[in-house]
Amino acid sequence: MFRTIEWLDDTSQVRLVDQTKLPLALEHIITGSHERIAESIKIMEIRGAPAIGAAAGMGIALAAIESKAKTRADLIEYLENAAITLNTRPTAVNLTWATSRMLEVARTTSGNVADIIGKLIEEAKEIAEEDVRMCRSMGENALEFIKPGFTIQTICNAGSLATVHLGTVGAVVRVAHEKYDGNIKVYSAETRPRQQGARLTVFEFMEDDIDTTLITDGMIGTVFREGRVDCCVVGADRILRTGHVINKIGTYTMAIAAKYHKIPFYSVAPTSTIDMTTNPEDVVIEERDPNEIRMINGEYVTVPDAKVYNPAFDMTPPELIDAIITDRGIVKNPTEEKMLKLFSK
Amino acid sequence: MFRTIEWLDDTSQVRLVDQTKLPLALEHIITGSHERIAESIKIMEIRGAPAIGAAAGMGIALAAIESKAKTRADLIEYLENAAITLNTRPTAVNLTWATSRMLEVARTTSGNVADIIGKLIEEAKEIAEEDVRMCRSMGENALEFIKPGFTIQTICNAGSLATVHLGTVGAVVRVAHEKYDGNIKVYSAETRPRQQGARLTVFEFMEDDIDTTLITDGMIGTVFREGRVDCCVVGADRILRTGHVINKIGTYTMAIAAKYHKIPFYSVAPTSTIDMTTNPEDVVIEERDPNEIRMINGEYVTVPDAKVYNPAFDMTPPELIDAIITDRGIVKNPTEEKMLKLFSK
Repeated sequence: MFRTIEWLDDTSQVRLVDQTKLPLALEHIITGSHERIAESIKIMEIRGAPAIGAAAGMGIALAAIESKAKTRADLIEYLENAAITLNTRPTAVNLTWATSRMLEVARTTSGNVADIIGKLIEEAKEIAEEDVRMCRSMGENALEFIKPGFTIQTICNAGSLATVHLGTVGAVVRVAHEKYDGNIKVYSAETRPRQQGARLTVFEFMEDDIDTTLITDGMIGTVFREGRVDCCVVGADRILRTGHVINKIGTYTMAIAAKYHKIPFYSVAPTSTIDMTTNPEDVVIEERDPNEIRMINGEYVTVPDAKVYNPAFDMTPPELIDAIITDRGIVKNPTEEKMLKLFSK
Repeated sequence: MFRTIEWLDDTSQVRLVDQTKLPLALEHIITGSHERIAESIKIMEIRGAPAIGAAAGMGIALAAIESKAKTRADLIEYLENAAITLNTRPTAVNLTWATSRMLEVARTTSGNVADIIGKLIEEAKEIAEEDVRMCRSMGENALEFIKPGFTIQTICNAGSLATVHLGTVGAVVRVAHEKYDGNIKVYSAETRPRQQGARLTVFEFMEDDIDTTLITDGMIGTVFREGRVDCCVVGADRILRTGHVINKIGTYTMAIAAKYHKIPFYSVAPTSTIDMTTNPEDVVIEERDPNEIRMINGEYVTVPDAKVYNPAFDMTPPELIDAIITDRGIVKNPTEEKMLKLFSK
């Protein structure tokens, strides 16, 4: 099964999927160099908050091996420099979180240099495994709703490729696929303008032999009307305490069509996605470059100076959401009261 | 204002927009040769049933001028051959309809060859003008719903480029634009997979200085929620006597979202689009080449062997349609009884 990043015990190297080559080729980068990991993060060969956190952790472990330090002090100095090298994307909080956590382990582990290196490798693998476990919890919690033979409609990519393994929506699909002996299908909306559904979701589910059908975003109503799907499962960039789900543009239109056809609509996300403070009316949706719509693969598909509206996300209100599925539990028919009960502590 | 095809009186030539160059260039073909017109129809430099009907009519008029016939018999023989040449697309009923109508005029006009040629030119122009008048009627009938300052959401291209001038949805927009001193705006959904909204609708409204904003199909719900549009106006490939509208894929999803936001939804089409015999359950929707979704501008945007579902059209039931607007009148909240009353005679 598909792993975005993993530690190779045999050679003490890291292997990661080169996402810049997708979906036309699945190529891996295998490296023992923390500088190469830093480069991968910088040029987005690896992306997605959980995945780059794991990459940074493994980068520190590689640095420890590379250091050839004879003393604790030399080792820690080398690792501090490696942490600076690895922090290539200033807004990615997972990077500093992971490198700080690794440095803390180096500083607090007793024993010689070899002992510390051993502990760092363990910790790097643990950071990755924590993400995998969290994703798996979401997938297992979702089994309450996902039955054998179901076809799941999704949008965008909330799969393995943003995480270490499994993904969020990816975990829902993969855990069900595993439990039900492969008896699960997916419809993936291509997700214009950036087409993560076509480029990433279709790719990674096909890699795992999950039966996946690609449609355009405008086909969703028809797919529902024809009874082709049993439920919708989408990710979330942010979930408000009111139960509003902010996710990739197109999610809201899908949720309306699902409601009209009485098709259950679920949002799945880690607890860290839940924002207990912002009110729905205060959410500001990022507007992106008009050329994302005007051009595809570098070529114009409309008049070059066409006026464009390009919101990156939309907000789906709780009345369109049957349940929010997290690693810590499920909120059915979300209300502020229920959200506070589960997540506010 | 934008004309797809027209007769040039000064030089007795035909001028038409080369649609294969759109949207990146507006180039015209100007020709006095009926064979060149036949070529244009064949390679889809001109397309759309009404437009190619007009082209064929003008093609016969050009042939009459080209013939240099001295006798009626020679002229008619030449025109019969020209009609065969012009019938380059076997399923286009408008082609045979227009050439037959022109030949009938040649056969029934008294006088000499010059008299017949004069009459043929008149008739060719009349075929084009009938289409313009029919479109204008639709646009004028729609004024009952379209008020000054309205922003109209549309999908696909039901504009000038499929007709001689104005279009169907195009007429609704243009007549309102004219009556309300330009105080009309449009949102055009790009309409994947073939992107006629981006390629054609945006282009032709921009040519006519109509304020047009391009969005992706998945943004429709958000545009509605934000109160950016006042109504939806879509074309129709076929309208059933039950009031079901068969139109470009994406129309149905838009209609559901419009209903949810209480935004009026209108379908506009000539009476010739109405099919009084087929039942909704018997409509077969064409499925097209999966590569239309897998590729854009000749490049893959997903895994090359991705499984795809690609219905070309969808069917919107009458409960989602506030009115059907035709050249012969309007049916509000369509039912079979109302449709029969207006169109069945």
